[in-house]
Amino acid sequence: MLSYGVRNVLSRCTLTPTPRRATPAARLSGRHCSSASSGGDVDRVSALLQLCVDRHYVSPGHTNTERFQCGTSCIYGPLGTELRRNLLEQWWRSVTTSTAQVFGISTLSSSEDPAAEARGRLRMVESDRLLRVLEQPELSREQLVQEVQALIQRSPSPRTNFLQGALEQFVPSLELVNRKLPFGLAESGLCFQPSDGSVAGSLGTTETEVVEENFSSSDVPVEELEGAASRGVRIIYSFPWGQEPLETLWSRGHAELLQTHKGVRSKLQCRDGRKSVPHVVSLTGNMDRGVMAFLSNSLQQLVKEDGKQKLLRRKVLKLHPVLAPVKVALDIGRGATMELRQVCEGLLQEFMEDKISAWPGYLETLPTSMEELNTKYDEMGVLFTVVVSENTLESGLLQVRSRDTTVRETKHISEIKNFLSRYITAVDDI
Amino acid sequence: MLSYGVRNVLSRCTLTPTPRRATPAARLSGRHCSSASSGGDVDRVSALLQLCVDRHYVSPGHTNTERFQCGTSCIYGPLGTELRRNLLEQWWRSVTTSTAQVFGISTLSSSEDPAAEARGRLRMVESDRLLRVLEQPELSREQLVQEVQALIQRSPSPRTNFLQGALEQFVPSLELVNRKLPFGLAESGLCFQPSDGSVAGSLGTTETEVVEENFSSSDVPVEELEGAASRGVRIIYSFPWGQEPLETLWSRGHAELLQTHKGVRSKLQCRDGRKSVPHVVSLTGNMDRGVMAFLSNSLQQLVKEDGKQKLLRRKVLKLHPVLAPVKVALDIGRGATMELRQVCEGLLQEFMEDKISAWPGYLETLPTSMEELNTKYDEMGVLFTVVVSENTLESGLLQVRSRDTTVRETKHISEIKNFLSRYITAVDDI
Repeated sequence: MLSYGVRNVLSRCTLTPTPRRATPAARLSGRHCSSASSGGDVDRVSALLQLCVDRHYVSPGHTNTERFQCGTSCIYGPLGTELRRNLLEQWWRSVTTSTAQVFGISTLSSSEDPAAEARGRLRMVESDRLLRVLEQPELSREQLVQEVQALIQRSPSPRTNFLQGALEQFVPSLELVNRKLPFGLAESGLCFQPSDGSVAGSLGTTETEVVEENFSSSDVPVEELEGAASRGVRIIYSFPWGQEPLETLWSRGHAELLQTHKGVRSKLQCRDGRKSVPHVVSLTGNMDRGVMAFLSNSLQQLVKEDGKQKLLRRKVLKLHPVLAPVKVALDIGRGATMELRQVCEGLLQEFMEDKISAWPGYLETLPTSMEELNTKYDEMGVLFTVVVSENTLESGLLQVRSRDTTVRETKHISEIKNFLSRYITAVDDI
Repeated sequence: MLSYGVRNVLSRCTLTPTPRRATPAARLSGRHCSSASSGGDVDRVSALLQLCVDRHYVSPGHTNTERFQCGTSCIYGPLGTELRRNLLEQWWRSVTTSTAQVFGISTLSSSEDPAAEARGRLRMVESDRLLRVLEQPELSREQLVQEVQALIQRSPSPRTNFLQGALEQFVPSLELVNRKLPFGLAESGLCFQPSDGSVAGSLGTTETEVVEENFSSSDVPVEELEGAASRGVRIIYSFPWGQEPLETLWSRGHAELLQTHKGVRSKLQCRDGRKSVPHVVSLTGNMDRGVMAFLSNSLQQLVKEDGKQKLLRRKVLKLHPVLAPVKVALDIGRGATMELRQVCEGLLQEFMEDKISAWPGYLETLPTSMEELNTKYDEMGVLFTVVVSENTLESGLLQVRSRDTTVRETKHISEIKNFLSRYITAVDDI
């Protein structure tokens, strides 16, 4: 892993007084999606994708799962949406509170710069205006071409990264820190990339502190260096379909900063007496690919012997408790349905007040066996399952099953909320 | 206020078995920006905007403050970014945990539908492709027009609202709730609107439970009803420059749902035995305008008599403790600077571990009077200011000043973190 504590990234630019040094490079392509030509472990790939769809992480449909696998923005179901939110929250908190001088900013999602080169850019064109130009019979062919070109030139370009926005915010931010370096700027949001047929690539972020066999890092080869960067280091995850970069650290020098501020060095200099222009280090990550990496990394297929020496296969999504979209599922066992539901309703309310995300399994009207329920919740990554039964009405006792240990415990209804709160707080930091 | 508990909104579609009734309408325009023709209280407007820029809520520049005032997406500084995040977090939590059956989803930010009518839409065009078409000398004028039209038709359209995405997710969501109504879907993110010269309007969300003189509601006039909606109700805020809608509730019937699913009623019916297609109620809010409303609403200009019977004017940004982007500022008083900074450094670390957002005022190298500091932090909306001084090194005691009471208290360094934690937790719900 990287030596200087790059734990989690989206787009964070650090402005340092001195440049960092480069080391040898290894090859890995950045923009392609190896999933299309999916060699790899076909079974593991389809098992992962199927589980993500079945358990409401990703919305169904071949096009959508392909998007998901490619790390472009896709349609997420309720569990995927919550996982993505949790991941982003963890990233944001860890970036903006890791040191005193990292500030979150929020810049424009598209820019209007009529002087910018039109080539290689997306443009947001108002089709009405363009169609009106095309419908003017009095324009000659040549005039038509000129009018369309001018319209394109005037149309805003959706951003493809956060770098430009951060460079532009350098001057007000430098004032904020009283012209003292280093400081950092962080941003998360949508970025857009033109690519064959596909649309918006949501550039986001991921947390990659997990030091496991599936994570690795490598230098970006010289011919793939971006913009003015003199060095790049990628954090890579080994998906069942091949390696994909999750985030990249760039050492960019000061050329882009100078260019953005039209070479006015005096605006860019810091207070330390040196006349040099600060160097920029940027980190960018793809949030959607981060979500996928965490899902892929936490899916475990366990084999267990039951009492009758039969082998049981069990799929569990062992997401970190902080990331798991559902912390507890509430279900009912045998007994008077109406009364048991009321108990669940009360517990649900209590959990919500404590911001413990709960799954109202008791609303299901189809009868399900306990085994089927456990399979379902394990695949959803639900941390605990609470079962309220007739016994609860009599003695206040309920059953709590843990996803990770599969152990069932009996607890009193009055202590369940604190038990869960304590568990989640204890593991609050990834 | 609305009678059925509309507390906070972004885009939340509720699918109900029965339609709701409509009531008389009052007039208020939805899309214009009254700030341009800013009548209203010019002094209050400029005081608010200046404070937002000076205190790092909004990035400087006339174009940017105009964007901010118009409720379109603008460049936020660190404090504005954090306020916006806090607001969104409150909205999201309250929407998704207010009842058991509201699910967060995340859909695509743009869609590709070659059959869709080109007019009135934004299109994301790859300028390279368009320029290549224009540069083909062998194309006749007529062929050129056709090629450009075809390219526009094939280009993806950025979304202008969340409704279509939610309607498309109706079927998988209905399965999720076991075909039982009502349920809700919530989403937040960027939406785009074509308008003269301007770019991305970030459609977002706001919390409007505050029942105050500046908030009101009114029916949407019939001629401004959107899509298939039979009724609309707006929540309006009175800015110093005029009234602006913050969020709108629409009763939409089932026409759009049927259309999205090509009239296949069987896919849309619920389990309650009735054969009717569910009706849709949607709520949408503009997040950026929400941020502005909270800033506008919390700026108080207080006049206080000092000891010498001089009138002191004091501007305070009385943001709710949950929303305030900075909870505590850390500064140093008289004493050995190096040692005092070390104490601050330790406190900062403690605060961060407890997720209490802190401002490292002690890093400022310019000498500032206590009065200037208080003015600054009051305008930033900082809840508490902690001053570490020589006395702290000797006795462990430090000074804590409250934004809201202006009272200074002496506390022991060991109790300050718990004091702040307790304060913030106690007011956790807006």
